[in-house]
Amino acid sequence: MRSTLMFNMFCMDTPGHVHQGAWRHPDNRIHEHNSLAFWLDMAKLLEGGKFDAIFFADAAGLYPKWHGSWDVIMGKAVQFPNGDPMALVSGLAAVTEHLSFVVTSSVLQHPPFSFARTASTLDHVTNGRFGWNIVTSFMENAALNVGLRMMTEHDERYRWADEYVEVAYKLWEHSWEDDALVVDREKGVYTDAAKVHLINHVGPRYTVPGPHLVPPSPQRTPALFQAGTSAAGRAFAARNAEGIFMIARSPRAAASAIAEIKSRATRFGRDADQMHFIQGLTFVVGSTEEEARRKEAELDEVIDGEAMVATFAGSIGLDLSTADPAEPLAELVKRLPGIRGSVQSLLDSLPPSSNPTVEDLARFNGRYWRVTGTPEQIADALEDWRVAGITGVNVMSMLTPGTYTDFIEQVAPELQRRGLMQREYLPGTLREKMFPGAGPRLPAPHPARRQPSAKPA
Amino acid sequence: MRSTLMFNMFCMDTPGHVHQGAWRHPDNRIHEHNSLAFWLDMAKLLEGGKFDAIFFADAAGLYPKWHGSWDVIMGKAVQFPNGDPMALVSGLAAVTEHLSFVVTSSVLQHPPFSFARTASTLDHVTNGRFGWNIVTSFMENAALNVGLRMMTEHDERYRWADEYVEVAYKLWEHSWEDDALVVDREKGVYTDAAKVHLINHVGPRYTVPGPHLVPPSPQRTPALFQAGTSAAGRAFAARNAEGIFMIARSPRAAASAIAEIKSRATRFGRDADQMHFIQGLTFVVGSTEEEARRKEAELDEVIDGEAMVATFAGSIGLDLSTADPAEPLAELVKRLPGIRGSVQSLLDSLPPSSNPTVEDLARFNGRYWRVTGTPEQIADALEDWRVAGITGVNVMSMLTPGTYTDFIEQVAPELQRRGLMQREYLPGTLREKMFPGAGPRLPAPHPARRQPSAKPA
Repeated sequence: MRSTLMFNMFCMDTPGHVHQGAWRHPDNRIHEHNSLAFWLDMAKLLEGGKFDAIFFADAAGLYPKWHGSWDVIMGKAVQFPNGDPMALVSGLAAVTEHLSFVVTSSVLQHPPFSFARTASTLDHVTNGRFGWNIVTSFMENAALNVGLRMMTEHDERYRWADEYVEVAYKLWEHSWEDDALVVDREKGVYTDAAKVHLINHVGPRYTVPGPHLVPPSPQRTPALFQAGTSAAGRAFAARNAEGIFMIARSPRAAASAIAEIKSRATRFGRDADQMHFIQGLTFVVGSTEEEARRKEAELDEVIDGEAMVATFAGSIGLDLSTADPAEPLAELVKRLPGIRGSVQSLLDSLPPSSNPTVEDLARFNGRYWRVTGTPEQIADALEDWRVAGITGVNVMSMLTPGTYTDFIEQVAPELQRRGLMQREYLPGTLREKMFPGAGPRLPAPHPARRQPSAKPA
Repeated sequence: MRSTLMFNMFCMDTPGHVHQGAWRHPDNRIHEHNSLAFWLDMAKLLEGGKFDAIFFADAAGLYPKWHGSWDVIMGKAVQFPNGDPMALVSGLAAVTEHLSFVVTSSVLQHPPFSFARTASTLDHVTNGRFGWNIVTSFMENAALNVGLRMMTEHDERYRWADEYVEVAYKLWEHSWEDDALVVDREKGVYTDAAKVHLINHVGPRYTVPGPHLVPPSPQRTPALFQAGTSAAGRAFAARNAEGIFMIARSPRAAASAIAEIKSRATRFGRDADQMHFIQGLTFVVGSTEEEARRKEAELDEVIDGEAMVATFAGSIGLDLSTADPAEPLAELVKRLPGIRGSVQSLLDSLPPSSNPTVEDLARFNGRYWRVTGTPEQIADALEDWRVAGITGVNVMSMLTPGTYTDFIEQVAPELQRRGLMQREYLPGTLREKMFPGAGPRLPAPHPARRQPSAKPA
């Protein structure tokens, strides 16, 4: 494993990704998100700052209604409107050399054959700087828009995802032999047809004969990311992901989740050291702690409590639409006992005397992943995360580009001095940058590399 | 209508698009098609040469088998391997300012909701330089790979395409009102939720509530292209397309097809002058006719007759797999009377004494769209096409970039002198460049603009 942490910009092609209301801050350029120039500026900034990647979240539908309508979701820009991040990748690749692009795509959005083809094309045009964050969509509106009558039950969604990645793996890893692409002008042979195989996948949801239309790309299978926190999600991550995105509530909580996922991965036959654990954090930096606190207060002023609650509710799949943001959380849990599991750990983290409201919860939810302080204090905090087993950070934007310019100008030098952040890029593909020396392809014990049970023709 | 012809590079993200075997020519760089650098070079070359667009064909599956296998299709690179052209667009947009990108996408490949979102994102990031070539795939392998058991019957495919574009139109034109995007930092209103509508589409194949996730892009609906030649295809084109791609066998044949499509368009209530008719042609240029003929002979040496036949058979959807390339066409028509309709016009164009073979047919098929000569002779030929009503040319590559460098260096100055080709780009979006003065949006009589029957919520 590399000794430095990975640092990624964590964002979405939308004005309101995580910190709802922050688009109102006068220094925020995120409302330019439909413009390519905006993203090209970001990519160049991040590459100059030695960030590893832009990690694009996505939401292929509307968040659940809030108080019976989408007025808050739309009006306050809760992950709406939003564009397709896959469509940005080749533009960003055109102006960078080392920065990678991890894109979220849900198994809902495209047939796996079409998605695998697009992904391989992107892995080619980025010279292997492409990653896929695999998600099963939780949003009813996203499902309805692709013609599914109702959202599939949670565990069933992971069985669906299992088959989706199985199809993609067969296309990426087993359709083309390494030397199938010949390009012999003299003999007139472009592809050795005997070395390109149908995959003949037949499963409960998909029937895909193949072959894959794209010759093997630098990584074949893009670097794989996943963010599941449920039991089914962790099992899926342990089996498939090379980078696990988590928003742990503390280094201690991270350490315990990491140990569990690593132990599952080992049981799947994988090398548990070939996994990155990437914590979502954001940073407010000052040259003194006081300055940092002042900046934080300014930012908190634009954060929108109601929109945060709506996002929180939607993101954990809870119906909180009957909740008033001012309602004490203790009352809410009495009315809706089903939510206790989801909010208990938050309740535990808050001072018992505070009698927090629903809005407090959401605001708190937006605060525990925030580190405010001097570059030294931030570096100290990151040392704690590293000791807990965290190997990367998804830096969530409050201001774009402000969150990243501050980080690159003020925090990065201290991190580099301590060996926590790279000073120069490692060579090769995203996978080689994540796991130096291991080569561009998935390691052999990964399930994608195993010969599929249905013999290819 | 503009007075100059449109000129587009007509190509595909594959080594063997139209002129099979040409990849073997030592000056051909098309085998670099997986590299972004290759495409960026092409885009810059074409923009320097005042081309209007890159027009990407696509084939989301394998051509039909030939003599019982895919050995010829794969071995000789008949539109295989191939990448997803949508994935290239933002990269090409990043290094150009005026060049547009027309991309073929079949109704098979993606759910219409997902496709419409990607297309809107691309229309944003290109500043309105994006066009969609609408196709219904004819290839069984493409259908099977997205889980369809058998290819749908031809006319039914157009009914399917009708519904697919209807969904896309509702999302692009009727989901967002013009002033729905507010971005008022003071009031904290990003989107006026009252002005974003569900589309509530319910049809035989698709159920899509919406809303569209992307705010209106510069053109809203990308500039629309289509290439159907059957009766159902022409009706579809007349109703929907702003640019009709055709490979007419002569200016006279073009004139008659154009008259028919214009008359149909008028019956649909459209302005028949708001349509481009774009002929597929390729050019072999010399400073003398003799030099041009010498270059042509060199090129013909690398063209692969068998691969041309396989392409021809696949592209017209005929099963010619029992045909020997050396079989006289007259015999073949006796054995397979069903193909007479498809080959009769070709037979009519060949000298009656020639007793052509299947391979002759395919080679001829690759020759009638070729203009070989001096810049003056080529300009003369283009004048004939313009008189027939052709308003644009899809320049098919024999060599990449050679076909285009020759054209730009040698032919373009003569065309510009005669007013056949633009010297400078017109301002605005692709649609405004195609139809100066008409604005970036589809004209009101276009069916996409009509209020859909199901009232949006």
